[in-house]
Amino acid sequence: MNKKTAAPVTVIGLGLMGQALAGAFLKAGHPTTVWNRTASKAGRLVAEGARLAPTVGEALKAGSLTVICVTDYQAMHELLGAGDIELDGTTLINLTSGDSAQAREAAQWAEQRGAHYLDGAIMAIPPAIGTAEAVILNSGPQPDFEAQESTLEALGTVTYLGADHGLASLYDVAGLAMMWSVLNAWLQGTALLRTAGVDAATYAPFARQIAAGVAEWLPGYAEQIDSGSFPAEVSALETEARAMAHLIEESETLGVNAELPKLIKAMADRSIAAGHGGEQYPVLIGEFVKPRDT
Amino acid sequence: MNKKTAAPVTVIGLGLMGQALAGAFLKAGHPTTVWNRTASKAGRLVAEGARLAPTVGEALKAGSLTVICVTDYQAMHELLGAGDIELDGTTLINLTSGDSAQAREAAQWAEQRGAHYLDGAIMAIPPAIGTAEAVILNSGPQPDFEAQESTLEALGTVTYLGADHGLASLYDVAGLAMMWSVLNAWLQGTALLRTAGVDAATYAPFARQIAAGVAEWLPGYAEQIDSGSFPAEVSALETEARAMAHLIEESETLGVNAELPKLIKAMADRSIAAGHGGEQYPVLIGEFVKPRDT
Ligand SMILES: NC(=O)c1ccc[n+]([C@@H]2O[C@H](COP(=O)([O-])OP(=O)(O)OC[C@H]3O[C@@H](n4cnc5c(N)ncnc54)[C@H](OP(=O)(O)O)[C@@H]3O)[C@@H](O)[C@H]2O)c1
Ligand SMILES: NC(=O)c1ccc[n+]([C@@H]2O[C@H](COP(=O)([O-])OP(=O)(O)OC[C@H]3O[C@@H](n4cnc5c(N)ncnc54)[C@H](OP(=O)(O)O)[C@@H]3O)[C@@H](O)[C@H]2O)c1
Repeated sequence: MNKKTAAPVTVIGLGLMGQALAGAFLKAGHPTTVWNRTASKAGRLVAEGARLAPTVGEALKAGSLTVICVTDYQAMHELLGAGDIELDGTTLINLTSGDSAQAREAAQWAEQRGAHYLDGAIMAIPPAIGTAEAVILNSGPQPDFEAQESTLEALGTVTYLGADHGLASLYDVAGLAMMWSVLNAWLQGTALLRTAGVDAATYAPFARQIAAGVAEWLPGYAEQIDSGSFPAEVSALETEARAMAHLIEESETLGVNAELPKLIKAMADRSIAAGHGGEQYPVLIGEFVKPRDT
Repeated sequence: MNKKTAAPVTVIGLGLMGQALAGAFLKAGHPTTVWNRTASKAGRLVAEGARLAPTVGEALKAGSLTVICVTDYQAMHELLGAGDIELDGTTLINLTSGDSAQAREAAQWAEQRGAHYLDGAIMAIPPAIGTAEAVILNSGPQPDFEAQESTLEALGTVTYLGADHGLASLYDVAGLAMMWSVLNAWLQGTALLRTAGVDAATYAPFARQIAAGVAEWLPGYAEQIDSGSFPAEVSALETEARAMAHLIEESETLGVNAELPKLIKAMADRSIAAGHGGEQYPVLIGEFVKPRDT
């Protein structure tokens, strides 16, 4: 895209992430207006061709799309809540991290003021912005997303999740839970193998293969959850629980932390106690959907 | 392979798994001798061409390779420990599940009696035996493994891990920890998304993509562990901990079980308290290698 045809955009908030977002828009040829509480952070971007607006209100008027990325939702409300700030007719994409309730509240608030509002989440670090590796999750009205999709593609791989503004936050934390879980299971295995003198580099390809292999089962297992029927086609939960006991024993005997193995088994044991020992692993969804005080 | 050239094998233990193992050897053309405490379980295999030995001792004499797969190591010792049983010169591959200490003890015991001993672990269910999907882990002296490798290939994808007889058990439980962790993280996300009306089938491809993507990081992260240096190239542990707090809050607010998120954060918090907040995630290995009473 070149400067003549690319849509003008505004970026509010020039922290580490905001600077990366504005930089990627500039690089893709979008006329880019920026604003930050601490104006000096705009220096490099201005040198690269960005326009620094004197006020938030002026920044919003520079184009039809404003991306905001500040510390938290409270900072966003402080910045855009002033009485003299005009949101009517603009499209606001909020890439600030928050929870699903904050996203839904912000959407109501922005829509009452006449804005088109999309809530997003960035699954990437600043240096990845502008590359396909940066996943940008979006939720809100589909027509509003589609109107901005080609502009947002300057930032990375753009994914639309649905009309509920809370979805971007939910997918974001769910994805992070997967990330930390894969890493922790790998660390558990690395610690176990270290007791036998196996280094991390030797074990890692095995862990990678298992994680990638199990990932492929998820769509099929999801069908069991959606149908509410969990026949033990592969293995019954009580068989798994016996192997979980081996994992705990092996960890404890070798002096490796057993908290993760114990949590894995505790959840399976509760499901077995509830009568699901003869069913397949995804029946454990029953334990995850219930809160538990521990 | 045809019957004329395939090596004769013996299978001791004809439970669900032993029957599958013997069946796969028969199918690959190996003259197959079987023995089981409850002889009637040999019926189908005999119909397929197996020879049923009258005693364990006779079964062991039928060929140079014996695969044993019974409930546990105690059962194996009961079966093979009798004074009149001759192990000298035979190769014994034990595919019974157990821990690394049991495997190392069994190796000593068998070697004192003149046997070549390999310890294995089966990462598969009986119907998968004989297909590439069935992963058979092996550990013990490399020449003994290499002498049997082509025969073992009748059972599935055969992997050699090293001379330490404990390795097959360790890789087995480590791999299972990865399997359960990917499944649990997926269930956590599925439960979170369900609160927004998203069904499991809609969420699963996203979880699959994250799990497979993170799996690819492991070899690189392993280098940090082996070098003992954890520069925050991607993100610092304290930044991760803030996002972990979001995962806990979101789970609790939505009435979803927060035990897994809390364990994830508790381990990170301890590492941060130990001074590692500015380092990258794999620094958490320090928490996994230490036992903790909880
Ligand atoms: N960095 C990452 O790796 C990453 C990854 C994914 C998501 N995110 C999310 O992106 C958002 C921004 O992160 P960041 O890394 O850019 O953070 P940062 O470097 O700390 O920048 C914070 C930004 O928010 C502004 N701000 C904070 N409070 C304000 C207030 N009351 N009024 C006006 N402006 C205020 C700051 O303005 P000043 O410059 O004037 O202080 C600055 O522009 C966060 O929600 C973060 O969770 C970051
Ligand atoms: N099934 C799986 O999905 C699976 C997957 C991976 C690993 N494994 C492992 O494979 C091994 C066997 O599992 P399986 O599914 O085949 O179990 P199973 O169906 O319960 O069979 C157990 C076998 O052990 C024999 N046995 C038990 N105690 C004995 C004793 N004291 N003396 C003589 N024989 C004895 C049984 O003989 P009788 O027939 O006379 O009772 C039977 O042959 C276990 O270590 C298991 O963990 C199984």
